[in-house]
Amino acid sequence: MSLLITNIKQLILTEESPRQKPLRGAELSQLSFIENAFLLIENKRIADFGPMERCPERADKTWDATGRFVLPSWCDSHTHLVFAKSREEEWVNRIKGMSYEEIANRGGGILNSANRLQETPEEMLFEQASKRLNEVARSGTGLIEIKSGYGLSVESELKMLRVVRRLKESSNVEIKATFLGAHSVPMAYRNGNRQGYIDLIIKEMLPKIAAEGLADYVDVFCEKLAFSVAEMEEILIAASNYGLRPKVHVNQFNCLGGIEAAVRHGAVSVDHLEVVDEADIEVLKASETIATLLPSAPFFLQDHIPPARKLLDNNVAVAVASDFNPGTSPSGKMPFVISLACIMMRMQPEEAIQAATLNGAFALECAEDYGSIARGKIANLIMTKPMPSLAYLPYAFGSDLVDKVVLKGGLF
Amino acid sequence: MSLLITNIKQLILTEESPRQKPLRGAELSQLSFIENAFLLIENKRIADFGPMERCPERADKTWDATGRFVLPSWCDSHTHLVFAKSREEEWVNRIKGMSYEEIANRGGGILNSANRLQETPEEMLFEQASKRLNEVARSGTGLIEIKSGYGLSVESELKMLRVVRRLKESSNVEIKATFLGAHSVPMAYRNGNRQGYIDLIIKEMLPKIAAEGLADYVDVFCEKLAFSVAEMEEILIAASNYGLRPKVHVNQFNCLGGIEAAVRHGAVSVDHLEVVDEADIEVLKASETIATLLPSAPFFLQDHIPPARKLLDNNVAVAVASDFNPGTSPSGKMPFVISLACIMMRMQPEEAIQAATLNGAFALECAEDYGSIARGKIANLIMTKPMPSLAYLPYAFGSDLVDKVVLKGGLF
Repeated sequence: MSLLITNIKQLILTEESPRQKPLRGAELSQLSFIENAFLLIENKRIADFGPMERCPERADKTWDATGRFVLPSWCDSHTHLVFAKSREEEWVNRIKGMSYEEIANRGGGILNSANRLQETPEEMLFEQASKRLNEVARSGTGLIEIKSGYGLSVESELKMLRVVRRLKESSNVEIKATFLGAHSVPMAYRNGNRQGYIDLIIKEMLPKIAAEGLADYVDVFCEKLAFSVAEMEEILIAASNYGLRPKVHVNQFNCLGGIEAAVRHGAVSVDHLEVVDEADIEVLKASETIATLLPSAPFFLQDHIPPARKLLDNNVAVAVASDFNPGTSPSGKMPFVISLACIMMRMQPEEAIQAATLNGAFALECAEDYGSIARGKIANLIMTKPMPSLAYLPYAFGSDLVDKVVLKGGLF
Repeated sequence: MSLLITNIKQLILTEESPRQKPLRGAELSQLSFIENAFLLIENKRIADFGPMERCPERADKTWDATGRFVLPSWCDSHTHLVFAKSREEEWVNRIKGMSYEEIANRGGGILNSANRLQETPEEMLFEQASKRLNEVARSGTGLIEIKSGYGLSVESELKMLRVVRRLKESSNVEIKATFLGAHSVPMAYRNGNRQGYIDLIIKEMLPKIAAEGLADYVDVFCEKLAFSVAEMEEILIAASNYGLRPKVHVNQFNCLGGIEAAVRHGAVSVDHLEVVDEADIEVLKASETIATLLPSAPFFLQDHIPPARKLLDNNVAVAVASDFNPGTSPSGKMPFVISLACIMMRMQPEEAIQAATLNGAFALECAEDYGSIARGKIANLIMTKPMPSLAYLPYAFGSDLVDKVVLKGGLF
């Protein structure tokens, strides 16, 4: 089966030969595109593309894309898409003046989600998560990372990761799984027995997860109200014995030195970075680690905005992701995340789009197959509605401009 | 034709006898609703509603609303929905560091829209505006105000208002027109002849607009970079001779005393209020004028957030509207405006919803027919998709939760 898309107003993020390394600093603003282009899909992959002058004469199926843009699908490299219930009542409490920390200390926040998830059967979790996955796919997400971390017990962490495995098997969205047992310390371990929970992660969760091959990465929430840098390091070292590379939550509310430690342990990405100091910047400049920014959370919390411009000006490799979760980012729609990246973090549309596609793919070590328009890559594409310019996509922040989504060569 | 909606999870904003005055301060958080309710529409109006126990046995047509909420449609009391072109290139310049004032001083901003509108034929303007109006109606807007102000010449201001008249005639959305000739001083009048433009407004535009009955209200952009308080007053006095009450742009960037002056001239509403001082609060507390907040503009500009809590705590009547316009709020989707009202301005979901419905209707002097679920009011309704709670609507900020929209008794 071949599909030919013709008369594309602009074919965005084309690569003659695919990059081997993420885009850094100023590279993010340089976006390759072809005006008045065609794109040919064969056997689920991008077979050819170029200017209309050399468009093939036919294919099994043809779409006319006059006035429309075609982009690689979004690569959303940080989500908590498997959860048991929305948490709008906590949000209303926050509006009424309660802080995130207060809610967390009262057993709300992550522990609230954990309680709910522990009670929810796997089948029901799978159904809810499938619905959310379809929703984000309809808005153009073709590659996604999904974390555990609302289990916080051996059984429930495994349950979450088995749900992710079922999603991998059932969906055309390409999925990577991250084990985040160290998302929060459960209440039962908070009175003097934190190490007991860390031991549970290292001695029970990790071996079982590795035995079933349930995770691609390991994550730790390194933060004052969660895990210290030393605790994170202990977990990352244990996980590395099972071949799990780190993608970690650091610097959401405080600079604790988590970035330096994570980079030292070979982190693929360090995520959040709402607060970053000079030492962090120096570490990131010199490293291969990707800085993944999640603007929905500071938008929803009205908290510190990640210093995207400072990172870009210092030649850091920046990715942008949704952080879809019920506590701090109850939305996984990447077009709006890209709007936020531009509006709140002052990223240029080209920077935000490349951070949410190619660099997202690098943040999941999938850039060989995803993240750009290159021959041989999997055909994961977005065709927009007619629009005047590429910048219109993030500018018209409330509009739904994604018309068609192609995943693994097929119309989603 | 009668339509019966049954098994409504919650019927929101019910009134046994319709209010005569807008909700003020703490009243906004008290939201009347009926659980497990029915609603009956006859002859385009709300004929009856109540608990399912006393649901009528039949009607011409029945919808089952199990799991769903029914609300009055949004009353968006401040928009610039008629415009000739999007302005994303200016937005990108702003991201790159140019200020709103700089862009305005370079002939961008409102003057840019004015140039484009002057060149655009009425028919094309009407088509573009109709498309936008349908888009906002699909997200639940049933009553809307539309301003002129991108004409800035006699001919073009009339052209805009004629487009609004055609929209009134062709759409099921109820529309009010506001004459905003005083949106910006055209370049030709900026070198020592500001009064020339004000005279044009007063002596040429107003008489012609009044003769054709093209406007319901008058507006002035009272701001350092636009019109002074004295200039605004001159225009408001002239407009009052034609029976046009003021709805004015004040306190977007500076406190100039515009609120006090507008209230003194009997303003139905004072709109924007990103910056408000103690004297302004005192004036609003003691007045009948509605404070209309427009959170999309400070979101898009990342500028001062209107002090909604302070206004509510001081017993002011607060409305919320979209400010849909190509420069500072390129989105007219009220569900997202309500999310912004909660997230950025810390309004509770009940406050934001009442501010965007009943108080929006009062801000257009239409509360007799719109803005709540009351017997005899026009049947303008939103039926949501199934959702767990009313707060979920603003919480899930990226989701499209409006399922069906009823305008003037018919499915839109």
